[in-house]
Amino acid sequence: MRINGREADERRPMKLAVDINKYAEGSVYIEVGDTKVICTATVEEKVPMFMKGQGKGWVTAEYSMLPRATQTRNQRESARGKLSGRTMEIQRLIGRALRSVVDLQALGERSITIDCDVLQADGGTRTTSITGAFVALAMAVNKLAVKHSLPVFPITDYLASVSVGVVGEQMLLDLNYEEDSKAKVDMNVVMTGQGQFVEIQGTGEEKPFSRQELDGMLALAEKGIREMIAQQREALGPIALKIRSGETGANI
Amino acid sequence: MRINGREADERRPMKLAVDINKYAEGSVYIEVGDTKVICTATVEEKVPMFMKGQGKGWVTAEYSMLPRATQTRNQRESARGKLSGRTMEIQRLIGRALRSVVDLQALGERSITIDCDVLQADGGTRTTSITGAFVALAMAVNKLAVKHSLPVFPITDYLASVSVGVVGEQMLLDLNYEEDSKAKVDMNVVMTGQGQFVEIQGTGEEKPFSRQELDGMLALAEKGIREMIAQQREALGPIALKIRSGETGANI
Amino acid sequence: MRINGREADERRPMKLAVDINKYAEGSVYIEVGDTKVICTATVEEKVPMFMKGQGKGWVTAEYSMLPRATQTRNQRESARGKLSGRTMEIQRLIGRALRSVVDLQALGERSITIDCDVLQADGGTRTTSITGAFVALAMAVNKLAVKHSLPVFPITDYLASVSVGVVGEQMLLDLNYEEDSKAKVDMNVVMTGQGQFVEIQGTGEEKPFSRQELDGMLALAEKGIREMIAQQREALGPIALKIRSGETGANI
Amino acid sequence: MRINGREADERRPMKLAVDINKYAEGSVYIEVGDTKVICTATVEEKVPMFMKGQGKGWVTAEYSMLPRATQTRNQRESARGKLSGRTMEIQRLIGRALRSVVDLQALGERSITIDCDVLQADGGTRTTSITGAFVALAMAVNKLAVKHSLPVFPITDYLASVSVGVVGEQMLLDLNYEEDSKAKVDMNVVMTGQGQFVEIQGTGEEKPFSRQELDGMLALAEKGIREMIAQQREALGPIALKIRSGETGANI
Amino acid sequence: MRINGREADERRPMKLAVDINKYAEGSVYIEVGDTKVICTATVEEKVPMFMKGQGKGWVTAEYSMLPRATQTRNQRESARGKLSGRTMEIQRLIGRALRSVVDLQALGERSITIDCDVLQADGGTRTTSITGAFVALAMAVNKLAVKHSLPVFPITDYLASVSVGVVGEQMLLDLNYEEDSKAKVDMNVVMTGQGQFVEIQGTGEEKPFSRQELDGMLALAEKGIREMIAQQREALGPIALKIRSGETGANI
Amino acid sequence: MRINGREADERRPMKLAVDINKYAEGSVYIEVGDTKVICTATVEEKVPMFMKGQGKGWVTAEYSMLPRATQTRNQRESARGKLSGRTMEIQRLIGRALRSVVDLQALGERSITIDCDVLQADGGTRTTSITGAFVALAMAVNKLAVKHSLPVFPITDYLASVSVGVVGEQMLLDLNYEEDSKAKVDMNVVMTGQGQFVEIQGTGEEKPFSRQELDGMLALAEKGIREMIAQQREALGPIALKIRSGETGANI
Repeated sequence: MRINGREADERRPMKLAVDINKYAEGSVYIEVGDTKVICTATVEEKVPMFMKGQGKGWVTAEYSMLPRATQTRNQRESARGKLSGRTMEIQRLIGRALRSVVDLQALGERSITIDCDVLQADGGTRTTSITGAFVALAMAVNKLAVKHSLPVFPITDYLASVSVGVVGEQMLLDLNYEEDSKAKVDMNVVMTGQGQFVEIQGTGEEKPFSRQELDGMLALAEKGIREMIAQQREALGPIALKIRSGETGANI
Repeated sequence: MRINGREADERRPMKLAVDINKYAEGSVYIEVGDTKVICTATVEEKVPMFMKGQGKGWVTAEYSMLPRATQTRNQRESARGKLSGRTMEIQRLIGRALRSVVDLQALGERSITIDCDVLQADGGTRTTSITGAFVALAMAVNKLAVKHSLPVFPITDYLASVSVGVVGEQMLLDLNYEEDSKAKVDMNVVMTGQGQFVEIQGTGEEKPFSRQELDGMLALAEKGIREMIAQQREALGPIALKIRSGETGANI
Repeated sequence: MRINGREADERRPMKLAVDINKYAEGSVYIEVGDTKVICTATVEEKVPMFMKGQGKGWVTAEYSMLPRATQTRNQRESARGKLSGRTMEIQRLIGRALRSVVDLQALGERSITIDCDVLQADGGTRTTSITGAFVALAMAVNKLAVKHSLPVFPITDYLASVSVGVVGEQMLLDLNYEEDSKAKVDMNVVMTGQGQFVEIQGTGEEKPFSRQELDGMLALAEKGIREMIAQQREALGPIALKIRSGETGANI
Repeated sequence: MRINGREADERRPMKLAVDINKYAEGSVYIEVGDTKVICTATVEEKVPMFMKGQGKGWVTAEYSMLPRATQTRNQRESARGKLSGRTMEIQRLIGRALRSVVDLQALGERSITIDCDVLQADGGTRTTSITGAFVALAMAVNKLAVKHSLPVFPITDYLASVSVGVVGEQMLLDLNYEEDSKAKVDMNVVMTGQGQFVEIQGTGEEKPFSRQELDGMLALAEKGIREMIAQQREALGPIALKIRSGETGANI
Repeated sequence: MRINGREADERRPMKLAVDINKYAEGSVYIEVGDTKVICTATVEEKVPMFMKGQGKGWVTAEYSMLPRATQTRNQRESARGKLSGRTMEIQRLIGRALRSVVDLQALGERSITIDCDVLQADGGTRTTSITGAFVALAMAVNKLAVKHSLPVFPITDYLASVSVGVVGEQMLLDLNYEEDSKAKVDMNVVMTGQGQFVEIQGTGEEKPFSRQELDGMLALAEKGIREMIAQQREALGPIALKIRSGETGANI
Repeated sequence: MRINGREADERRPMKLAVDINKYAEGSVYIEVGDTKVICTATVEEKVPMFMKGQGKGWVTAEYSMLPRATQTRNQRESARGKLSGRTMEIQRLIGRALRSVVDLQALGERSITIDCDVLQADGGTRTTSITGAFVALAMAVNKLAVKHSLPVFPITDYLASVSVGVVGEQMLLDLNYEEDSKAKVDMNVVMTGQGQFVEIQGTGEEKPFSRQELDGMLALAEKGIREMIAQQREALGPIALKIRSGETGANI
């Protein structure tokens, strides 16, 4: 039996609240168990230097945790004067994952920055950030699409993410902090509404893992992500229908 | 008539929610109009180098805004690699103000760090932070006092803060962002439950101000702070009675 | 009786020497007791990014102490790689105060940087810097006004600053370091030649202060600043008459 | 047909030269095609702060490229004043992967730092670094084991890494830079001599990938890594036999 | 008798291998005893800000040591976040020395950056870097001269460098690390093919030195540099003849 | 004829004022022409990490220029967040030079930091800093020697420095800024009272220099330094006699 009495293939309860910031073009408050994240999307009518003049847009992400998001207080990265490797790795992952479902050509020469700020952390902050970030992104893109009458809706598919792992002999879906810290294998999976992989990051720091364990974890992840995308679709309401795979998203 | 139909001496609605973080020793969510701040208090059983061996405690504060707390997105200070002058000034102010109502001797050789993170900003983020930080501090101190059976409750008085200013010819209480950006004079006042001043920071960047204007602004601030302290007392419940001036706090 | 035998309302002797740098557009050496500061004004025919295209000028200040300006040696901020919060706070204050008596429109799209470098510190380095910076600024503005035949002299009033405080039961004018370190309340006041306030920064870190103490300290500050402005006028010689309130500056 | 006439499942030629640095406890020069890396292992009789007093050792890695390792010159990270996100991500990966085959308990309270410096880059610098780093690590551990007569040899298995990807419709093993920049899917795999996974990092930035593609890529990676480990065993000579899975390493 | 049995006026064996990097416009691997350095030259069709619009080129250098180039591992300057004073001093020296034999006018508005990366250090890394950097520079300039049919070959003379010193009572040529660390006087000399001085940096940290010692050391340096230039000429092959003093270089 | 009508072998007028800082253990204000520097010496009863436990002392120096020491304003290194290569090179030179005349054993386990702050720069700031720093150092060492009754006076000889150069065809002593910027060769020489060399740093960036020019410049430097040491001796008064070569210093 898992902590909190969950089944091995049972996610923690997830809540999504949209439009929670009066300034941002898209904003979401997402809770997965005790992990709580605010995602805001900011649209700017410019692109980074390396993208200039290509007629294409850009999507990027930043990630941070409040100092007391965790059991003991962490020093602010602004006070330390630099981002940790962990933060950089996570924000690179979020940005890369989001771009995989955006038609940058259709976006036009604009950039969207998604800020993921973790208010409270209980495992899975990067996967929760991706799942929330997608919703904030879709809202901001929708505003853009309406305002500029974009001929094609620039989001090509849904996107969500969950963690899976091996704890003891058991494969588990959606690990909380306590489970994560005991896991021998930890894997983060990002998938689309069509059931394709966007990112697989599996690590066996304490102990290598077998092909069989890999297959088992991927099956759990797929189940979890399918459920999450259903909740995203609900939260997005009519916007959901504009996403290219919107009507067929159920086939994951 | 002011924006939102407020009277010149009328504050914006203020909400206080306590215990909103599962890890922090004290935590508060505070809203003053559209300004929204999370304050968490962290207790550590050590003091900074310069305080070691004196048998006294220390209280300090850190302040930050989420990138999209404002109309346009601000670059993160962690990405820029350093704190802005504005951030440093504000967190020095919050820490200094809080220390004025803490009996550091009674606290013992421990430190409390108050993190004030602005989720959304609409003017008055530093005064709102102080008002919220005091409540988070009191909660954390109370836990300490109970746990270690401290003989004296280390908080000596209430503390709250509000901004006042001169807009056009009018003196106004609790400026929002729009009013603040038009103000000729801007003043932040921090006061105790006993009605004493802890900080007065008045600035006439656009235009110097007269003695008469100073007196008018101080009167408004006193009214506002008296009302805020009443709300703090309510939020703190039984803890309120342990604050030394608790029973007499009404005499401001 | 105070250290050095001063009365409670007696300033330390102040000396001003002008034109002490062969390169700067304006330069002043100022001594207030044992506090010694060099202020230089640099004129540049450009403004910061955020002021571009508005046809207005900008005035800013930087502040630093030599490592051995104090009893024990301080590490250089250049070696530490960042400015302390104290330095940032002080240079923001100096710049803001100076701008309050400059007609930025009349200055034209130019910027003036005032560097205040403390050679020796004995309390009141920020107030001494402001008082000296004003004179260096006026000299540089005068050169500009002559060179470009500006139709209106861009300085609208005199500006000086002094500290006041409460030591024991006594309110004192112009605290030196020893007095400052024993003060329960410390206040820096910046005023114009017309007797208006530009900045009031009062802090009761050790103990809150009453309205009566505030009034007493403001009266001392006003006396001190009136005397300082008389000395500034003398140091500036014929330039003094060009300052708009020049002929009427005595009414403080 | 691939660039250079390789088959889809054919690696680039790999060379390993050991003991190429007169100071380091272990050192390797590794070439995979035109990718050239120097790996040195440094043993220190201390562990990082967070590992102190646990009687266990630590293994960590640092990664860097010479400025002209690439087609156009890159600014040095030392000149920029900070490590890029890419560098941090890679060095975290190398360290984590190495630790998965080290018995930290058996190592004793010592740390080993592996420096991977890329002299020339033509794709696969992180996988080449891991493969070379393992050999440098084994050499340094062997010196330690001999010198301190460690009862158990602290390396538990072989470790090597290769990249695989999807270019056009084809799945390819060991991509060079030109192939990598055209790949729709890119995956780095780290495996042990026993054929278990240590890291799987698959990314479909341009386009998500299917389960079938994942399976195909994993098969290619397994073939490549099996061949690489055979070369590592040869390079290590008698040390190879001390690795716990040494005699059975062939069963991958 | 010296370490390794060298005579007082005998250099260590020097090897030069050219074209060792497939991307760089010029590249050299240089060994002087156990000191091993890679020098690459990068040509860019732009000049630094301060040189713009003068129709002249620029030559600059960067220097770094791999962490384990030395007996004990050095922390990377990229990890420390800043260059040490030693590194800055050395790279300023290399750039300055190279510029003394380049006709910047003839180069045109282009810049060449020479990267000197020390793989292994055994004394004399800065002098070895200069000697190798000159060859890489000449190769890159030659490619430029051919490609753009420059009317004048922009390199005006040969350039090489060696260290000399006083150890005990003896004056020695080309000190290795062990000798260098016992030297009372240490001098680096940079000379041209014509036998003129470009840099003389003599330091008597432990003990001042006499005029006689200076003269003796300069004579040793001249001998060593003459021999090194002969080897550079050989390594450069036909390019050697294009250097203005090429035919007459022997007169040193 | 030179600027200001000086002869080729004529120094600029030099002034030395001692004890100009009320806190520092030694302090000097030095003027060489229009170059003006404040040197303060700070004694601390500790040594840097790398010197601990050797029973020896340490002497180090820091160097900085006020922003408006020069014709145009320089950005502060504290604002830029790092020291320039030029600053590091100069402060390393000053420290190294001073240590050559200090008996670190006799000093005991203490450190002395000399701060050289340039108020106004007109060429020769590093040589002027060395000449002034020696006097501040001698004063601080004298206080130490008296206070701790040191058996041996830790300063072994005088030390001063001057620049020489080749401008046009002429060799000149003590270049000012205008001459320096036209010089083809620039050399800084540091010598002792006994006429020995401590540092020779000669650079021919624009053009290499001959042995004859080297000899001529060294002769000028020796003359200049002999005169400067005479002035140092005068400024030091009775302390001069304690310097070991004090009575014989004239033989330079």
